[in-house]
Parts: sequence; structure tokens; C-alpha cells
Amino acid sequence: MQLRTIYESVEGGLAKVEEQFRQLVGSQDSTFPELHRMLGQVLVAGKIVRPALTLLAGKFYAYNLDKLLPMATASELLHIATLVHDDAIDKASVRRGRPTINEVWGIDKAIILGDYLFAKAGESAAATGNLRVVRLFAQTLETISSGELKQSFSAFKVEQTFDQYLERISGKTASLFSMAAESGAVLSQAPEEQVQILKEYGLNLGIAFQIVDDVLDFIGAEEELGKPVGSDLIQGTITMPSLLLLDLYPQDNPVRRLFQGEGDRQENIRNAIELASNAEIIDKCYQLASDYCSRACQGFDRLPDKSSRKVLLALAEYVVKRKK
Amino acid sequence: MQLRTIYESVEGGLAKVEEQFRQLVGSQDSTFPELHRMLGQVLVAGKIVRPALTLLAGKFYAYNLDKLLPMATASELLHIATLVHDDAIDKASVRRGRPTINEVWGIDKAIILGDYLFAKAGESAAATGNLRVVRLFAQTLETISSGELKQSFSAFKVEQTFDQYLERISGKTASLFSMAAESGAVLSQAPEEQVQILKEYGLNLGIAFQIVDDVLDFIGAEEELGKPVGSDLIQGTITMPSLLLLDLYPQDNPVRRLFQGEGDRQENIRNAIELASNAEIIDKCYQLASDYCSRACQGFDRLPDKSSRKVLLALAEYVVKRKK
Repeated sequence: MQLRTIYESVEGGLAKVEEQFRQLVGSQDSTFPELHRMLGQVLVAGKIVRPALTLLAGKFYAYNLDKLLPMATASELLHIATLVHDDAIDKASVRRGRPTINEVWGIDKAIILGDYLFAKAGESAAATGNLRVVRLFAQTLETISSGELKQSFSAFKVEQTFDQYLERISGKTASLFSMAAESGAVLSQAPEEQVQILKEYGLNLGIAFQIVDDVLDFIGAEEELGKPVGSDLIQGTITMPSLLLLDLYPQDNPVRRLFQGEGDRQENIRNAIELASNAEIIDKCYQLASDYCSRACQGFDRLPDKSSRKVLLALAEYVVKRKK
Repeated sequence: MQLRTIYESVEGGLAKVEEQFRQLVGSQDSTFPELHRMLGQVLVAGKIVRPALTLLAGKFYAYNLDKLLPMATASELLHIATLVHDDAIDKASVRRGRPTINEVWGIDKAIILGDYLFAKAGESAAATGNLRVVRLFAQTLETISSGELKQSFSAFKVEQTFDQYLERISGKTASLFSMAAESGAVLSQAPEEQVQILKEYGLNLGIAFQIVDDVLDFIGAEEELGKPVGSDLIQGTITMPSLLLLDLYPQDNPVRRLFQGEGDRQENIRNAIELASNAEIIDKCYQLASDYCSRACQGFDRLPDKSSRKVLLALAEYVVKRKK
């Protein structure tokens, strides 16, 4: 199923999120043209899975767009803010097929634009008028940055466990999915038990999403990904495929050689991509992602609306089948 | 008067802010030692003028530390977060006499630590349980980052007006002073008229504070400042003394030469510092700072508590007399 088909029931809300983005870009048109151009570069609708999560999780009880819309916008703005800083840190030159902020304007501007977007995201979260989701928003930024810091300190270290990998992706990706779903549930006045079910859905979906992202970084097509293949290896980040590869060839291994600076760098990257792309490793990764998607949908029988449940199930299916 | 004497009436509250900082550093002791060390490096009490402002502004009505304390902490954390990013952008190696985060751990870690501190500041603001101050907090971060962005885009440009300078320092410094004072007033349930008087106090005090900061960057002693003299010129930032200097010598001017990359860089910086340090320029700057301090205290007769008014007056006097 296509994403837009899955999003059908919240189409109106998502269109409003995109409208808010256009307004945000437009608002700086004459007052601050440089900021206007930078915002136009990053505030483009990607998969918008995070705002969709907020709106879809809000579908089970009181679907009140006055509250859900600012939070859906906040979820995506927070995501984009972290991407701007990630790209600055990684010196990435392309994202979603476009040049990054640091590539065009330099790292200094990228740092400040990221901060500006954090602020905008925070204002949007505060516009819900709900202190619980504001707190959740701030805690999520803490979890994300603390996860990024851990990733940064463990870069180019070969000795990493599967649990450390899970902890990292939970922090840097799944926490935001979890926030998006939990806040949608809270803002639609779901009972606490159902809030927890939707929060767990977001968390597990986020883990599955990141595992697939990490697989696509090895086997995806550059034009579909909108960024170079092998980015994680280049940054020294161990992900699921590399972990399995290190397990499979504990001694002579291109990932180990790459991280320890032995041999030809490009050749190590090429070899690692080739070896990790074998069917056994890729299947194992997808199997794990599927397991997390199944876990995501546990407890769904305690959610009221059957058609909204189906949509979340379809989204979970999409996450493990996507190619970009 | 010494700062600590001025702060006397809120001493207990400030001690608790410092205690919260120690706890924040300590909380990562065993769980994340690298983060523990980074926090220990930056969470040191400086002049703590922002948290003092929150507490002092809270002295006129219901002085409720349960609400004022988290906001006082948030004010200082937000300040420190912006310093961490500023130093990363400026490639500054020393701050408050200590090596900066980017100097010790590199720019990447500085970006993420700044984000982490924004999150912690946001959590602290949310802990007030007051949506108005949460909104104010997010708006202030927006104003600061937008001011930083303007400063960044105008670096090394000679053609800048006095109004642009004022706008920049209002954004990057005075907005946070204003937030600190306004939130203290709001959280102590001051009537709206008094909230506005205290907010204006913070704003004008902040402008005066930054003008003096900019003067000290020319005439201060390095060991007192805890950073090199002439930092602004090195970063290509025009401040009040340079503006006056450009006014005084419109043609042959070391600031102009420096920003246009003409002649010897070090010599231009030396000459600019020497010329700007003449009594006429410095007196004009201090006079302007004094004007803003007087403006800060306008409307004080409508504030109830006379002893708390005296403290704010003393703080305004301190701001234009400080040497670091």
C-alpha cells in the first residue's frame, strides 16, 4: 500500500501541517530573506510519518485538530531540526536529494538554523496548551540528543553489542515516533491504558523503521534514498547489518579494518557493503524489523476503533516493506 | 556593590539553582561518564545574573520557589546552551577561563551537548507547570537564534547601522534577560501591569549589559574576562565601540581594513583596539549603557516592595560598573 493511501483518514490534517510549513517559510519572505531560503530548503514534506502518527493516534478518541495539529507540526519540526544538526555533524552534503544546509551555507548557519527549528518546534508543542505533551516534547529532545551523544562517542568502535545498538536507535529514532503517537493519544483524551498501547506502538514502530533505514543504507538505491549508500559506515556508525557481518566474520572483516584504519578505505567500504548485502544478513534484519512491528501492534484489541487499528497495522506493514 | 551582596535577598534560591546544577552533573556520574565530564565543564556558576533576575522579579508578589526555582534554572541552562553553540561557531577556545567544549571534545560534541542543554532547559521550564512561561521560553529561543543568524549573516560587513546593532543585541542577549524577569513576575502572580514593568526592566538591563560586554571586549583584562580581548573583531562582529570608531574615522579605519581583508590582520586588530579604547568612545558607550539602565528602572514607582526595587536599582548600577 502507498503511504498516502494509508494516511487517507488524516489527509486533511496532514495537508494543514504542510500548509503550516509553507506559512513558516513564507513568513520570512521579506523580513529575513536568508532565513526564508534556508527554511525553504529544509521544510519540505518527506514521508511525514511522525505527524501522521500523531494524527492517526488521535483518531481513536476526540480527534480535535486544534490540539493535534500543532503537535503534529511540532513532531516534524523537531525531526527536521535534528536532521539539520546531524548533517552538520556528519558533514553530509545531500539529504532527501537536496544539498544540506551545511553544504550550502556552512556548518555555523546549520547549527543556528537547527536551534531556530527547535524553538519553532517547542512553540508549536506549547500551542497545544497541554503541559504533559510539552514535557514529553522536552524529554524527547533530551533522549534524542543523549542518544546522538552516545553514538558520537562510540563512533569507529568495533566492540559494540546488539543491546547497545538497540538502545541507540531507541534514543535517536524510536523516542520521537513514541512521542508522536503518545502525544496524539494524550491530546485526544485517550484513557491512560490506551495511551500506553499507542506509545508502545510508536516506540516499536520506530525501532523497526530505523532497522530498515540501516538496511537501506547498505542495499538501497542512492536516487531513492536521496543520500549516498554506505553513509553509516563512512560515519563510523555500527548498525544491524555491520553487527551481523562482524558476527559472521569475526577475524578478517572489512568493517573492522575500516574502523581500525587498516587497508584501503574505499575498498573496505565497498567490501563491507557487498558482504553485508548477502541474503542471510538482510533477511535477518528484516525479520527483526518484522518482530518489532508485530510487537508494535500488541494490545491493539484494547483499542476501540477497528478501522483506525487497521490503518496502524498497514503503516507497520509499510515500514518493513519500504524502499526509501 | 558586590554581586553577591545585591543577590542577598534571593541567596537561598540561588544556592538551590547551583545545587540543581551539581545534581545534573552528578546524575551522569556512573551512567554516562563522558557526558558527566562535559556537563562538569560548562555547568559552573558565573555571574548567574539571569536566574537572579527571575528570583528578584519574583520578590514583589508571591515568592513561590516551587515555581520560581525551575524557571531560574531554565534561564541559566538556556544561556549556557547558547554559549556552547556560540563557542562552537566562533571556534572559541576559552570561556570563563576554562577550555570550551569544542576545544576539548570537538565541534560535533559541542553541537549535541548544546541540544541536550536546550532540552534540559525546556524540561525545567515545563516543570513550572505554567504554559505562559513555557511559551515565553520557546519564543525566547527563537528570538535568540534568529538574532544569532542575523549576526552570522552580517559578519565582516562594515555597513551596519546603530539600529541594526541594537536589534541584534536585543535578540541575542536582552531577550533572555527579559524572559528571566518576565517569567519571575508571571510565576509570582504579579498583575499584568507589573509584569510588563519587570519585563521592560529585563530588556533594557540586557541591552545595557551587552553594551558593557562589548566595551569590555575592547578594554577588559583577559584574566578577568576569561576570554581573549578583541574576540568580536576576530569574529567579524561590529559592536558599539567599532560603530563609533567607524563614525569617527570614516575613511582610513582599521576595522574597515580588517573586515575587508586589507593589510596585516593582527595589526588591524591591535590598532582597532587601541583607537576604540580612547576616552571619548568608551565614555559614549558607558553613557548609552547608563541610559538603558535608567530606562530599565522607569515605572518602578508602580512596583510595591521598596526594598526589592532598591535591589533591582543596585543591579542596574552594577551592570554599568562591572569589569568582567
